[in-house]
Amino acid sequence: MMKIKILTLFPAMFDCMHESIVGRAIKSGIIDFEAVDIRRYSRDKHFKCDDTPYGGGAGMVMTAQPIFDCINAIDPDHEYLRVYMSPKGERLSDGLCRELARNDNLLILCGHYEGVDQRVLDLCIDREISIGDYVLSGGELAAMVVADATARFVDGVLGCSDSHEDESFSDGLLEYPHYTRPPEFMGLKVPEVLLNGNHKEIEKFRRQKSEEITRARRPDLLGKKDGE
Amino acid sequence: MMKIKILTLFPAMFDCMHESIVGRAIKSGIIDFEAVDIRRYSRDKHFKCDDTPYGGGAGMVMTAQPIFDCINAIDPDHEYLRVYMSPKGERLSDGLCRELARNDNLLILCGHYEGVDQRVLDLCIDREISIGDYVLSGGELAAMVVADATARFVDGVLGCSDSHEDESFSDGLLEYPHYTRPPEFMGLKVPEVLLNGNHKEIEKFRRQKSEEITRARRPDLLGKKDGE
Repeated sequence: MMKIKILTLFPAMFDCMHESIVGRAIKSGIIDFEAVDIRRYSRDKHFKCDDTPYGGGAGMVMTAQPIFDCINAIDPDHEYLRVYMSPKGERLSDGLCRELARNDNLLILCGHYEGVDQRVLDLCIDREISIGDYVLSGGELAAMVVADATARFVDGVLGCSDSHEDESFSDGLLEYPHYTRPPEFMGLKVPEVLLNGNHKEIEKFRRQKSEEITRARRPDLLGKKDGE
Repeated sequence: MMKIKILTLFPAMFDCMHESIVGRAIKSGIIDFEAVDIRRYSRDKHFKCDDTPYGGGAGMVMTAQPIFDCINAIDPDHEYLRVYMSPKGERLSDGLCRELARNDNLLILCGHYEGVDQRVLDLCIDREISIGDYVLSGGELAAMVVADATARFVDGVLGCSDSHEDESFSDGLLEYPHYTRPPEFMGLKVPEVLLNGNHKEIEKFRRQKSEEITRARRPDLLGKKDGE
């Protein structure tokens, strides 16, 4: 079983995970998922968790103490891989998700407002991860993305009906297009080859489409494969 | 006011957006946000919205009819920019978020399972967008990320206390580290320069830190600036 602890000021946001694949894995006991409220660990009498930045500037900064105490209460022996979601982090990729899925214990700290006091990151965090080159109003959605994309690589989470085999990035290419019933919709027909039952030809067609799409949209993914 | 319509099989997942910055913008009437249940538009007597893929393979594919009818009911005159969330799409970036925020009407289709019948994408979708090179169990979390990262650029959504000025990517660099009270935490001190009130020096220090962090972690971002 993989344990995922999310440290956040907005634990209720994570209720939506129960409708997702992570929710299914929680129900079947493969993943233990908890959103922990950092605020409970504040020693301030009003449970304050932020303050103005030293040096001035816009916004508020999350203070070190509540986060430090929360992490040490949950993970006193540093058994969790401790991740902080940040646009400054290394970028999440299919490969990084596979790597994260090999950890039995994953702790994800969500920043909010302008950010988190750098000292608690220096003291407690193993790895900073970014889900992409854009700014979110908090780390919560980013943490959900990491949890979902990682859970898919935990043994037993995906049923045999939804394997990794044909999905984007699994072989370094983008996925081929999908078609289902009816054979004709609004004048558009399903490609003939998909209807004839010749599996070799179907495979060839899909491979060719994957390559076409990847070449057109993401030639950078081909770079390492054929020198383009 | 910006209208955002999310088309999904899991509308309840979007309840969590009400705790976010998008939620605040909804309350203040700047953003009109709705998660629409695609299933309501299925003409199948059991409201089925998926079927097995032509040509075989794992998983289920979302059928064209419910999506086609849902889009045409909501946007009969094509006034919305219609986006489909997909790992095959163009990658979301700070610049793309700014661009999306200039649309008054944004429709985001969330795929689920293995994907969506290609024909409904060909017929209805203006743009495919990916939030990164990883696979999620559905487009829902990706749509939340787009909504959040885009809403931040809609006029009036961010208060003056949380401007874009100093955040990552705003000037092509990653953000400098933040510090707040107390001046010493677990033996770690706030950098002296931030305490002395000399704004020119503070600005210089932050700029230098931004450049250092960007050089160390994301030299690709510097590429176009100084030829590295």
